[in-house]
Amino acid sequence: MSLASPSTLPLIPDVPDLHDAALTARLQHLIDHKTKPLGALGQLESLALQLGQILGSEAPALRRPQMLVCAGDHGLAARGVSAYPADVTWQMVENFLAGGAAVSVLARQHGLDLTVVDCGVRRDFEPRPEPATGAPRLLQRKVAQGTADAVEGPAMTAAQCEQALRQGREVLAGLPGNTLLLGEMGIGNTSSASLLLAWASGRPVAECTGRGTGLDEPGVARKVAVLEQVMARHADIGRHEPLRALAAFGGFEVVTLVGAVLQAAAERRVVVVDGFITTAAVLLACELAPAVRQRCVFAHQSGERGHALMLQQLKAEPLLSLGLRLGEGSGAALAWPLLDSACRVLAEMASFESAGVSQQQG
Amino acid sequence: MSLASPSTLPLIPDVPDLHDAALTARLQHLIDHKTKPLGALGQLESLALQLGQILGSEAPALRRPQMLVCAGDHGLAARGVSAYPADVTWQMVENFLAGGAAVSVLARQHGLDLTVVDCGVRRDFEPRPEPATGAPRLLQRKVAQGTADAVEGPAMTAAQCEQALRQGREVLAGLPGNTLLLGEMGIGNTSSASLLLAWASGRPVAECTGRGTGLDEPGVARKVAVLEQVMARHADIGRHEPLRALAAFGGFEVVTLVGAVLQAAAERRVVVVDGFITTAAVLLACELAPAVRQRCVFAHQSGERGHALMLQQLKAEPLLSLGLRLGEGSGAALAWPLLDSACRVLAEMASFESAGVSQQQG
Repeated sequence: MSLASPSTLPLIPDVPDLHDAALTARLQHLIDHKTKPLGALGQLESLALQLGQILGSEAPALRRPQMLVCAGDHGLAARGVSAYPADVTWQMVENFLAGGAAVSVLARQHGLDLTVVDCGVRRDFEPRPEPATGAPRLLQRKVAQGTADAVEGPAMTAAQCEQALRQGREVLAGLPGNTLLLGEMGIGNTSSASLLLAWASGRPVAECTGRGTGLDEPGVARKVAVLEQVMARHADIGRHEPLRALAAFGGFEVVTLVGAVLQAAAERRVVVVDGFITTAAVLLACELAPAVRQRCVFAHQSGERGHALMLQQLKAEPLLSLGLRLGEGSGAALAWPLLDSACRVLAEMASFESAGVSQQQG
Repeated sequence: MSLASPSTLPLIPDVPDLHDAALTARLQHLIDHKTKPLGALGQLESLALQLGQILGSEAPALRRPQMLVCAGDHGLAARGVSAYPADVTWQMVENFLAGGAAVSVLARQHGLDLTVVDCGVRRDFEPRPEPATGAPRLLQRKVAQGTADAVEGPAMTAAQCEQALRQGREVLAGLPGNTLLLGEMGIGNTSSASLLLAWASGRPVAECTGRGTGLDEPGVARKVAVLEQVMARHADIGRHEPLRALAAFGGFEVVTLVGAVLQAAAERRVVVVDGFITTAAVLLACELAPAVRQRCVFAHQSGERGHALMLQQLKAEPLLSLGLRLGEGSGAALAWPLLDSACRVLAEMASFESAGVSQQQG
């Protein structure tokens, strides 16, 4: 499916509430009558219930899961907010495509289609031939060669923000399957995520800011000082102006992800959220369309400071907590088999009746 | 490999220390030079290191993983320590073999060979034809029709304990591959595990005892009262008499698992530990041969009270914490893809050098 002329469509799609009490009751009955003590599969049971609700089925099946990795550069990187040079963004895009990055390895392990989108990397990539089936694919949706310096003004213009958002919707609409896994790459993008969290939660920037790819303590202090300047510069953005917040705090990859998440939610796909940056994109997508939240499965709690606060803000219970802080979609890929398991438990486990197993006594 | 005459071999195999500083340094160097910030894959990195150490390789590969589900009945079940009738043990064995139990579904998902062992179920199973490749298999290693009532005396005799332990070793020695996943079934066996934990940790039985398959609060109180009687009856068992503790607190499936774990460790296989009962078996195997601990990967922290204490006693950091409390090996199976991922990250991820990615600055 493809949007014929996306610019004529509303910027934010309609994302209806999924509430269906009858389906929920049928799913819960199914789960409760599987051959196991009540609730004994813990979070896997709530996951099965949620997947059934999202896909509107008592036998939800995840088809052709798509790992979407959005990449972009950040004007703030020049202010030393990251432990790595900005060139790492394009170098890692090449690494994703060559199959050597963590997300490439994990996507291959689990049979996830991997699409990398240049949303605003500071270097141009040569167009490449259509890859073999199952190989990573590059899409060119560059808004600009990196965002502007958010200390000086908004990271992007309102028009750029709208372009990135529409492109995210269009990219997603062109992907097959009913499940989206979120990934990202962008040196400096934990700064964007921290700023968006500070804006959405009203908490001080320092509480929302961590080591990113590995800053030492003085590095974190410098990063906090820069981000405090950015917040002060944009203090006039109101709590109900998510599009202005997105443009100010930016990340072309973040805004493209917001668009992809909105479109996925509108199409009733399952959205598997990775770490700090993709959760920030989901946080903003939920500001734009609250029922997005119902479609989101939170893969893991990252080791990055601020992610726990962000998950709390979203009332999210992540599946994994392995101290990951890589991004790329690596945590979403690692959690993927649990989603598959939840569906299989629903579809394949016997009931007490069908297996002839005695139920709990008195 | 098969033990020609197991009874002439020593009861406890030699389990050498795996310490190899040179290999550890080479593995850590490999991990640290992968294209990711230092430590950014969190617990997956320590898992990769451990798997390399166990298998003695910089490119550890998990071959033909074996899910071993040991089943047995418990004399204590007649005292109402479980929410389910004892018949559920044999009924669930049939469910495992028919493919309808959680562990059957998850083993199928991940391509784990599933072997169910009747170690002491109260009902005899008809011998079955050799199943098709990949289908669950039943092994008959029944020591007796369930254990004796541990309130009245030891759950089993010393000879029965030795028999179960040797049988566990022999069963394991006959399984292919280099990775063992532990599972169990036995109505009443959380009682065995709680007693073994109380014995090993010196803690009061009440701290070690939980709801099992789903007792309510008065049910837990009754269970604790029964287990306190058992502890009082066997108060003379010293801290350095693990075989006496095993015989007293029993579980033919628990002791068979201890034997399987010891043999797996002696053969330098990876041991993937499931929940409360299999962790109790590992706790006892470590008492008999401390270097067993080095071979153990702890799949998850169960929702069963006492499991956290047991993991603490073993200084174990579990991979998952999903509130599972089913047993069967379901948690081990759910964690399985993470072990596979850890090996693939080691083998397939590019280094900074090979991918041409810039390293951390300053």
